[in-house]
Amino acid sequence: MAHKLVVVVRTDLAMGKGKIAAQAAHAAVGAVLRNLGTPVLVDWLRDGQPKVVLRVSGEDQLGEVCAAAEAAGLPVEVIHDAGRTQVDPGTATCCAIGPALIADIDAVAGTLSLL
Amino acid sequence: MAHKLVVVVRTDLAMGKGKIAAQAAHAAVGAVLRNLGTPVLVDWLRDGQPKVVLRVSGEDQLGEVCAAAEAAGLPVEVIHDAGRTQVDPGTATCCAIGPALIADIDAVAGTLSLL
Repeated sequence: MAHKLVVVVRTDLAMGKGKIAAQAAHAAVGAVLRNLGTPVLVDWLRDGQPKVVLRVSGEDQLGEVCAAAEAAGLPVEVIHDAGRTQVDPGTATCCAIGPALIADIDAVAGTLSLL
Repeated sequence: MAHKLVVVVRTDLAMGKGKIAAQAAHAAVGAVLRNLGTPVLVDWLRDGQPKVVLRVSGEDQLGEVCAAAEAAGLPVEVIHDAGRTQVDPGTATCCAIGPALIADIDAVAGTLSLL
């Protein structure tokens, strides 16, 4: 299992668990669609498409992690909520990083805790 | 917005919110990959790929909803957890139904509450 996808979720938005699950699903689906046809997606699927959900304290930390991932050349998919429920329209709620090699993701997100 | 995808999650497994989010992401990604190239997937993406996360009380109710969805000809993706954390290996934790027309999904899952 050399590849994974992580979803990084803000904990400051008071989202319920169903809302968090929907946002994480948006992020993971976005990451998959964006990487269709790439070798790394095939490798990740072959590994059993492992997904790990991590937490950040707020918008600033989410932005820092996304910037670090982009700087490292990793696929990043930021989810902005439509804002029909629970959060303001356009709020960045979470991001997906990957699929990519575990070591490459851990280099930018390895210090984050599980949600 | 005529199409949606729902993820139906068991609430009896004492899964944490991060675990639930990962399972919902598995289900949504599975549903998308299984329906690649179908007109309904294109329609759903055009609608903004709406996702709704619903709850069932346990394995029996999950099975009933899945059976009803399959009988109605809807795409169903059941997620069985690898069991490395929190639940026993092979446990059915959730399912995705759709993407499909909202009315068709509501005919089999319309009475379920939001998670």
